[in-house]
Formats: sequence, structure tokens, C-alpha cells
Amino acid sequence: MQPWQEEPSGRFERQTISSRALRGNPLGDPHERPLWVYLPPGSGDDPARRYPSIYLIQGFTGQVDSWWNRPAMRPTTPERIDRLFASGGAPPAIVVLVDCWTSLGGSQFLNSPATGRYLYYLCDEVVAFVDRRYPTIAAREHRGITGKSSGGYGAMVAPMLRPDVFGALASHAGDALFEFCYLPEVARATRALRDHYGGSYDRFFADFRSRPAFSKEHDGALLDVWAMAACYSAEPDGTVTLPFDPATGRLRDEVWQRWLALDPVRMAAGHAEVLRSLRGIYLDAGGQDDYFLDLGAAAFSAELDALGVEHVFELFDATHEGIEYRYPIAIAFLAERLTPARGGVD
Amino acid sequence: MQPWQEEPSGRFERQTISSRALRGNPLGDPHERPLWVYLPPGSGDDPARRYPSIYLIQGFTGQVDSWWNRPAMRPTTPERIDRLFASGGAPPAIVVLVDCWTSLGGSQFLNSPATGRYLYYLCDEVVAFVDRRYPTIAAREHRGITGKSSGGYGAMVAPMLRPDVFGALASHAGDALFEFCYLPEVARATRALRDHYGGSYDRFFADFRSRPAFSKEHDGALLDVWAMAACYSAEPDGTVTLPFDPATGRLRDEVWQRWLALDPVRMAAGHAEVLRSLRGIYLDAGGQDDYFLDLGAAAFSAELDALGVEHVFELFDATHEGIEYRYPIAIAFLAERLTPARGGVD
Amino acid sequence: MQPWQEEPSGRFERQTISSRALRGNPLGDPHERPLWVYLPPGSGDDPARRYPSIYLIQGFTGQVDSWWNRPAMRPTTPERIDRLFASGGAPPAIVVLVDCWTSLGGSQFLNSPATGRYLYYLCDEVVAFVDRRYPTIAAREHRGITGKSSGGYGAMVAPMLRPDVFGALASHAGDALFEFCYLPEVARATRALRDHYGGSYDRFFADFRSRPAFSKEHDGALLDVWAMAACYSAEPDGTVTLPFDPATGRLRDEVWQRWLALDPVRMAAGHAEVLRSLRGIYLDAGGQDDYFLDLGAAAFSAELDALGVEHVFELFDATHEGIEYRYPIAIAFLAERLTPARGGVD
Amino acid sequence: MQPWQEEPSGRFERQTISSRALRGNPLGDPHERPLWVYLPPGSGDDPARRYPSIYLIQGFTGQVDSWWNRPAMRPTTPERIDRLFASGGAPPAIVVLVDCWTSLGGSQFLNSPATGRYLYYLCDEVVAFVDRRYPTIAAREHRGITGKSSGGYGAMVAPMLRPDVFGALASHAGDALFEFCYLPEVARATRALRDHYGGSYDRFFADFRSRPAFSKEHDGALLDVWAMAACYSAEPDGTVTLPFDPATGRLRDEVWQRWLALDPVRMAAGHAEVLRSLRGIYLDAGGQDDYFLDLGAAAFSAELDALGVEHVFELFDATHEGIEYRYPIAIAFLAERLTPARGGVD
Repeated sequence: MQPWQEEPSGRFERQTISSRALRGNPLGDPHERPLWVYLPPGSGDDPARRYPSIYLIQGFTGQVDSWWNRPAMRPTTPERIDRLFASGGAPPAIVVLVDCWTSLGGSQFLNSPATGRYLYYLCDEVVAFVDRRYPTIAAREHRGITGKSSGGYGAMVAPMLRPDVFGALASHAGDALFEFCYLPEVARATRALRDHYGGSYDRFFADFRSRPAFSKEHDGALLDVWAMAACYSAEPDGTVTLPFDPATGRLRDEVWQRWLALDPVRMAAGHAEVLRSLRGIYLDAGGQDDYFLDLGAAAFSAELDALGVEHVFELFDATHEGIEYRYPIAIAFLAERLTPARGGVD
Repeated sequence: MQPWQEEPSGRFERQTISSRALRGNPLGDPHERPLWVYLPPGSGDDPARRYPSIYLIQGFTGQVDSWWNRPAMRPTTPERIDRLFASGGAPPAIVVLVDCWTSLGGSQFLNSPATGRYLYYLCDEVVAFVDRRYPTIAAREHRGITGKSSGGYGAMVAPMLRPDVFGALASHAGDALFEFCYLPEVARATRALRDHYGGSYDRFFADFRSRPAFSKEHDGALLDVWAMAACYSAEPDGTVTLPFDPATGRLRDEVWQRWLALDPVRMAAGHAEVLRSLRGIYLDAGGQDDYFLDLGAAAFSAELDALGVEHVFELFDATHEGIEYRYPIAIAFLAERLTPARGGVD
Repeated sequence: MQPWQEEPSGRFERQTISSRALRGNPLGDPHERPLWVYLPPGSGDDPARRYPSIYLIQGFTGQVDSWWNRPAMRPTTPERIDRLFASGGAPPAIVVLVDCWTSLGGSQFLNSPATGRYLYYLCDEVVAFVDRRYPTIAAREHRGITGKSSGGYGAMVAPMLRPDVFGALASHAGDALFEFCYLPEVARATRALRDHYGGSYDRFFADFRSRPAFSKEHDGALLDVWAMAACYSAEPDGTVTLPFDPATGRLRDEVWQRWLALDPVRMAAGHAEVLRSLRGIYLDAGGQDDYFLDLGAAAFSAELDALGVEHVFELFDATHEGIEYRYPIAIAFLAERLTPARGGVD
Repeated sequence: MQPWQEEPSGRFERQTISSRALRGNPLGDPHERPLWVYLPPGSGDDPARRYPSIYLIQGFTGQVDSWWNRPAMRPTTPERIDRLFASGGAPPAIVVLVDCWTSLGGSQFLNSPATGRYLYYLCDEVVAFVDRRYPTIAAREHRGITGKSSGGYGAMVAPMLRPDVFGALASHAGDALFEFCYLPEVARATRALRDHYGGSYDRFFADFRSRPAFSKEHDGALLDVWAMAACYSAEPDGTVTLPFDPATGRLRDEVWQRWLALDPVRMAAGHAEVLRSLRGIYLDAGGQDDYFLDLGAAAFSAELDALGVEHVFELFDATHEGIEYRYPIAIAFLAERLTPARGGVD
């Protein structure tokens, strides 16, 4: 094994997009965003040939450069992607690494008056940018999306919300069954507010921003809950409405219903036609996922069954961490489904 | 310190009740039940004197004889009760240790077609039995109830459901805010059913009953969730309806609403008048309670505030375990509140 | 199932011993000690018949009355013992429940100038007391000892130290391989001293004795380490010498060697002849024991193999807790081995 | 905040060393190694000026490219280094990122017949390479070393073993007090061998190499223990001798002594003169370090005190993870101590 950075067989190109959608976003986050585009080996050989495209989105706190993080004694994700295509493990496809980070940790790939218009950015600006510059087959039927955790959430909901854009999806441990993945965090956040911040999120943020992020044990729950509220239950003026009383944790039913309306499991029935029209749906999760996202995936799968939507669903032996080796499985699945049948673009 | 069983200053009497309410109960549990009655020191001296009575009920899996369990290097609960009254730490009161155990682990002190009529047993049969045989002041105003965990739940809801019986309550870490205390158990139970029992509670029970109880890690969640369903969402014919799809964990909204209707936090508004009429309400919980019952207690307290119900609420530094030293605090509170003003029965 | 206290088929008799060995012990603990003796069903029928005796000793913090603690939805140990003999699961034997508790939590069943002469108390006073009053076969070949955790330790070492007294042993998860079972506790204790008590055990004990025992998370490690030092490395004048520098945790090699000299694994070679002469040795442990006592049992077993000592060794699926169902297995084993061959006392 | 890769103020240069020492190493790992050299802002301005050099080494499993891993919502280590010098937080110094990775996870920066001559590689080849190409002050008095975890170990021992090379050290949570940091791993490894690999490390490695590294929970302990044995107790022919019997975990005393001889705490007394001659020693650790390395640091500090070695020691509130923000603190300390007094090279 050669453990250090290796020269890829394909090519990763770094681009910068100046987003109109994100300009002046409410968090003051940059509207210039990095983007990486992977071109599989041989993709420039025939100038006339065009390829399916696969959009890879990130989990909570992910910035696009963290794809290059090396996990202990394992390949980085770009290395895995390159090896997949270099080995012929999947038909050639263009893979796009998108950045939808926010200073709250993420956007859930939604449009929100509290964070910014990230669904629009992804579906309109990024896709157009890529289709303009790269030899993609610029059609829904040949465009897919995939990710893990919050990225898996985005991969489930973006095709439902924007059926014109994506024609297949793959989700690893995507946020779903919100009562299981978020409510324990709400409880932990409430307790941390009480014990350390006099019940005030303002005081938490003042502290959090004054020191290395996540240097206190409760940072994760507090940031996560607030960020999700910013994505799921923000008001038109950008105010974030929490789905619970921060003094007790008690749910505010009407706000919680707004969250549930964005739970993929509960969204599916309203988008059954779209889901049936997809070229492929791949779901998986580790059976001991820390956020019970194995149950979320199973519930989404069961709902798809009930709606008559064909899909693949797998559990494997893992928690929520250390599962980046699943990415190539999903990318190969999508590349297969999104590649035109022989004889040309179908 | 004299660590071993000591002769109490007061007197514990063991009784057996042959319950009509529990005869033929659906679980086939005994209808003859043990009962212990504590008489404080000096309580027989003046035959004319009568005392307040305090009913002490148990947590999940508790059988009445487990009150005598000795925790490591600490007094048993009966020893603590006796020391409280022997030391003059509370005005004399009669303390009644009630058994509402079921072979599912407990009854939540409710009437249920799946477990039995335990609320009736407690409020009608036991109270009548005690009032007939012991020098109690046989009136709501001088009768209180207290317990921990499921016992704390019973202590909150029994006075709401039977305002004719109890005039004060004290709850240590009582079940409340069901979304926090039960949903993580539902998730764990679903996963255990999937991984070990092919999704079937029948198979779980067949296994569970074939070996020492709780010898597998998942036993707790599986038994707890089923038992709660037997208490909160049983059908008239005794069938237990789970509030979730056991294949995925997805909530069945209408069944879950039946559970929520029995959450003390959500019950309070409908029983505001009764709660206001109580002579005392004492709530506490450990700030790191494993089931987030500190949040449940805080939410119940906040609801009482909103309803204009006077009460005492305390958090202390502990988890859900090892907190039996709180019992005498609550018993003293109740004895104070339930003792008639000087000059006779008020 | 009848869950509540049941009338035993055999008989438990409570005795009190006034110990000369423990009078004036250094901790000021009582020298009058409770003792329970179990007589199996039918044991009085033939006044001439005599029975093997089995001494059951306790784990750390155990007081003799805690045998009657009811674990959730399971029989108490006395109930299990009675059922064993009532069902004919073992040849009749007299079972003796001994109290060697100290106000430090235990004695390890050793003589120590810091705690008292508990080995002497057990082997001389208690055994003589029982043999005088009960129909035992008063000979080593028909006398066994068993226990769990610290009780399992005592069951391993007492027969080595007093081969005149015990002729068989059974140990459940007994303290052994001290580097694994004690050193992590030493590390935790050092840290707790640093963080909460300015490095001083005096301050810890002042705090510990001012509040309910074990109401702080670190109480267990701090008490355990001190108590073991009181048993393993006390000086003739009763001073307790810690095997580590409390400021850093660094081992004091010569003191640690005194501990290791009392590790059953390391003691065995020096007592090989005695061990070979035993009528039976039974060892078991849960494979996920919290203190790695499964490794301790395996190492003791391997050492016995190396010394040519026949024995039984079993692992089962459990941690250190909830394994009281193993007691009857060991008691049956001992009763078999200690019962005279037909034709009379062999 | 600009969250994405930023242009550094200084300059990182990637080099490749073709090592003679590592050629033909026993693990077959590459002998061509990457090396990164950081030049602080302005370092080329005055061609005559020379700078102190600081060698930054890695923890177990670290490869040099993992320095660029982005932790969630925090700067990478290169970003932190650059910001330190760009902000004037430390006098200018050259920082060298060295790769001493092995396919067992690491080398502990020692020479071992089982892994390779990594101490030699670091102290002779890398240092000579850097001094030849960069404007360093090529003298021990102006050369320091620092790292975390195994890197902190290397930073403690390399100056003791090679006093000719390093004149100052800084260690974050460096491996020390081996009985606390390694023995629990030995216990866990023994258990995992027993439960999953029939007691055989060969079977473990066959499995481990067939799947993503660390996809099983026990991988960490098993790899760590073997790798440390390869570093601390290998035989001249390259055979790895474990310090314990893999069937039981029982320590092999004489092999364990070989480990202890390499424990920094125990090495210090034998290198007191060298330690006293250092220009600076900085130690820190998180007070809740998962491997008790806070105790190791405290014990090393206490030993330095006993030997009359001046040094700085700090505890901070953290576990073993997420503490990369400590690196700049140590680098600034070293840069201060290693910078010549005004007036030129002292």
C-alpha cells in the first residue's frame, strides 16, 4: 500500500462560483463558494461524449475541503471515487462536490429565510454552472444526488422538491424519523442551556464563538438543534423559532409539525409520483447508527414500499461514524442507473 | 454506624389484601397482594388520635418487598422512613407501601383492560382497607401519595384522576414529557426486535421468559415499551396496541396521541381545579436523569405555574439511580402539609 | 409466577456471633455479626444424618442482609438457594451466609492490621460456630466456599491460605489479574483526588461520610482503591500504604508487589499442592465483565492447568452485573463434590 | 470567518526524502517519504537570517497529509501554524512536518527491528535534509520537537535518546505511565482475540486487512497493542514479542519490563543531565484524557521536579480528542525558547 497522496487517474478540478442566490445571505456567509468537479479517466478522449453527473453533498459541519480529510489508515473520499472509476467499478460519470456549508453548520440543502437559499443555489446555480462547463448529459434522467447524514437528507428531499433536476438518489444514514434523530438532541440541548447558559441561546453562541468549536461536550447538541430550527422553522423575517420551550424542552406542537412536514418519511406520500419516476433510489445505514438513522432509512423504505416505489435498502454493521467506504457503493449504483442505454441518450 | 438490620422505633405491619378488582386480571397475576403499613413511634399511645396517611408507590419492576433492598452502604427505605419519624423530622403519619406490580413490570397505577384495574385497587380497595384498620384521618385532605419514576408518575396522575382520594402529592423523577422519556426506548426496542426477534414481540417474550430477566441488554427497553403500551393504549378486549410500527419504529400518530393524553404535563390543564385544591405538591429530579425526567419535572412545574398551582420544585445533582435518599424529604413535606392544624381536624 | 416473598421449603436461621477476633478491630466496626444458616428441606428428618457445608461470601460493600435484595423480576438469592435444594437440583447441603463487611466496604476475607482479622473470623470462629450447632460433616473434605467478585476472590484465596478448612471452591468473577481489575480504578481514583479533593484521601472521606454513599460518580473508585490497600498493603500499626503516588498515580513498585503477592493468579504456584488436593474447583465469569474478571478467571484457570490442577471453567454472556443466577450452579457443583460417597463419610 | 482553504501568509513546501535508513524496512513500507516544511512570513527577506526549527510529529495512525484534515468548524493545523506566525504570536521559526507512519500505524519514533529505523530517519536523515535546504540554525540549541499522543511520546523520548539533536520539547498528552495508557488496551485486545479470532493475531490481521480499517470496534485496541509491541519489544530478527499471554492477558513480566524501560516517566532519571540541559520543556494534557495521559504528564512532570528539571505543565478541560488547538501554544513556547538572544546566535 502507498499510503500518501496519490496522483489520481481521473482529474479533480477546483472551481469557484459567485452565487447570486447566496449574496447577502442572512448569516453573512460567503457567497463565493468552492466547487470540485471530478472527471473520470478518459473523459476527455472523445469530445463528443457526454456523461451522467452525480452531485455529492455533505453532512452537518461539512465544508467542501473536508472531503480530503484522511481517516486513519483509509483512503480519502476523493481517492475512493477515483479508484472506483479507474478500476472500472462503475460506468464513467462526472462527480460534483458541492459546498452548502453555513456558519451554523449546514443548510439541509433547503431555502430558508434564516440561512439562505441553498436549494436554489444547488439546483439552479451549481447545476447550470456544471452543465455549462463540463460534458454532462444535462437532463434530469442523467443527474443524481447522494450524501450521508444531513447530506443523505438532502439527497432524499432535493429530488422531491425539485423533480426537474434530479433523476436518482442515494442516501447513507440520512436524517429521517425526526422524533428519533432530533428529539434526544432537543432534550440534551435543553439541559445544557439550563445548566450552562441560563436558558439562553444567545449566551451559548457568545461562548461558542469565543473558543475552539466543539471544545465542550454539549456544543454538538446545541448547535445541531439551533441549525435545524434555522432550516426547518424560520420565520419570513429570518427569526429562528425553536420547536420547544427552551426552559423545559416541552414541544411546541405547531412548530414541531413544521419540522415533521420536512421529514422525508412524511414527505414521501405527497411526492409519490415523483419518487416513482426516479431511475434509482438507494438507501443504507449502519444498524447501530447513533441517531437511529437506521430506523429512519427503514421507515423511508417502508413508505416507498407502501407507495409502490422501487428502491434498494441495505443495513450494514456500523454506527454513524467511519462509514465513508459506502460512498463508492452508492456512486456506482447511481452511475449505472443514470448511464444512457446503449444506442445513445434514451 | 450499625450497618445491619436494626429494630425500628415505629412498626411495620405486613398485611394481605384479597382484591376483588384484581381477581381474574388479564395477566393472570395474583389478586392477593401484600401491603405494608408503617406506624410511627408512639402512634398507639393515644387511642383517640388519628394520623395523616401517605401512600408510597413503586417504580417499574418494583415489588413491595424490594423496598427492603439494601443499597450499598446506605439505609433501606424502611430504615429511612423510620429514622425520619423517630428523629422528629416530620409530624407523625402512617405510611402505606402498596404493591401494584404486574408480570409486565408495572401498572402505572392505571386501570387498563390489558393489565388490570390498578387505579381502582389502589384508590378504593387499599385505601378503604387501611382506613378501616388503622388510625388514619380518612379524608382526602389528610391523605397523600408519593413515589419515584413510574411511582412518581402514579403520584402525579392518581390525584388528578381521583381527586376524591388524594389531597397532596410528591413525585421524584416521575414519567413525564413522554417524547423524551419513552421515544428513545421505542427506538431501541424497534432495533432489538429487528436484530434479535424478527420484528416479533411474541418471540421476544418467549425468549425473555425462558431465562433470567434482564440478562440481555435490550430486555429493559423491550419490556418497558410493551408494558407502557399495555397501560396507555390497550383496547377494550385487552389487546395491546403499540404506538409505533414495530418494523420501523415509525409512530402511529393516533395511538401516540392516546399516550400523550396520559402525560402528566399534558393532563394538568384539564385538571387545573383539582391541582389548585391540593394541599401540597412536591417535585424533584436528578439533573442528569437517564430518561430526561428532570425535563419532565420542569415541564410539569412550568405547567403548574401557568395554571396558578402552587408547588415546590427542586433539581439535585444525580442521574435516575441511587436517589432513594430523596424519599424522606418528600414524606416529610407531605406529612407537614397533611397534618391538621392545631385545634383538631381543620 | 408468585412474585412475592415465598415460604421456603428449607429453613433460614439467623444467628449472631460475638467475635473475639473482631473485638476492638481497627475500624471500630461491630464485633457482633449476623450469620444466616440455611437448612435444606428434610434436613432434620434423620437426626443422625450430617451434611456438607457451603460458605457463601459477598462482594464489595455486601452486608449479609443484602442477600435478600430482590433484583428486578428475579428471585432473591435465598429463594434461588431454596429452590435448588427443594427441586433436588443438588444433594442436600447446609449453606452459610457470612458477614465480613467493614465500614470500608469489605475485608477481602483476609487478616489485616487496617481492617481486622476476617480470615480468622471466617475460618475459625464462624466455621466452629456452625459445626457446633448444625449437622455438618465437620471436615475440610466436606466444606466448601463460594462467592462473586470480592467474594469470588475470597473463595479462591481462603482455601489456599487455610487448606485445613476448605476442601472445594467456586468463584464467580473473582478479583484476579490485579493489573486489569485494579489499575484502571487507581487511575480514576487519582484523577478524582486531584479534581475534587486536593489530592487528599482525608478530604474525600470527610466528604463521603457527610452524604449518601455513592452519590458522586467517583465514590466507587476512591473507596475501592483505599479499601483494597487496607486489605493488601497495610502496615503493622494499621497505617494504609497506597500502591501509588496519589499526586500522579505512578505505581510504587514495592507496594504494588505486595498487592501482586495476593493476586490469586500469582499465588497459585506457591499453593499447588493444596489446590491439587481440593475436591472441586469451579470458575466462571461474564465475558464482558466490567473489571476484566473474565481474563482474571481465564488466567487463574490457565495457571491451574499449568500446575496440573483439575477444575471447571466457564464463560457466559454478561457483564459484572445481574449474574446472581450463577450462584445455584456453583452451589450445586460444590454440593456434588462435597457429598460423601454412598456408604458413609469417606 | 472565511471557512475554506485560505492562502497562507507563510509558505508550505512539500519535499520527498529517499531514506537510506528505511530502505528495505521489515514492514515493506515505502522508503520514500513526504515531508512538509513551513517557512514563516518574511523568512526569505534577509538571505543571511537563520531561524530555529521545530519538528512536528504525529500521533498513532497519522500520515503527514492528515495534518490538512479539517476538524468540524475549526482551522486545520497548517492554518493554525500559519496564523500563529502571521499574527506575530511567536518569533519566526521553521516548522517541519515529518512522516514516520508505518503500516502498523506508527513507529513511536524509535528504531525497531520489527518496524524500521525511524529514530535514525528522523534525527539524522530528516534533520540533515532540512538543515541543508532551509535557513535553519543547525544546532541542537535551536531545534525543538513537539507532538500529541504518540507524537507527544516521541517528543519526550527523542531528546533523551538523541541529546545531540533536540534542545527543547513540547508534548501534548504523550504516551506515559504505560500501566494506565496501555494495560486497558491489552485487556480489551485479549478479549477481542478470544471472542473473534481464536486467540490469534494472524487471524485478526487477515480480517483487518480484508476490510476498511477500524470498521470493527475492537480494531483500535488490537492494532495499538501489536504496534506498540513491534516498537517496544521486538527481537533482533524482527519477531514481535507480546508483553502478555494472548490467551489470558496475563503479563509476561520480563517483556513488560522492556516496555517500562521505554516509558518516559521511567526513562527520565537515567537522562537527568540531558533533560536539565534542554532550553525548554512544555507538557500538557486534557484532564479527562481517554488514556489517562493527564496522569502520565503529571507523573513525568513530578519526575522532572524530582530531578530538578525546569519545565511548564498545564492541564486543560478536555478528553484526548479535539485538542489540536494546543499545537500553536507549544510551537510558540518552543519558538521563544529556541530563538537566539538578540545579538546573534548565542
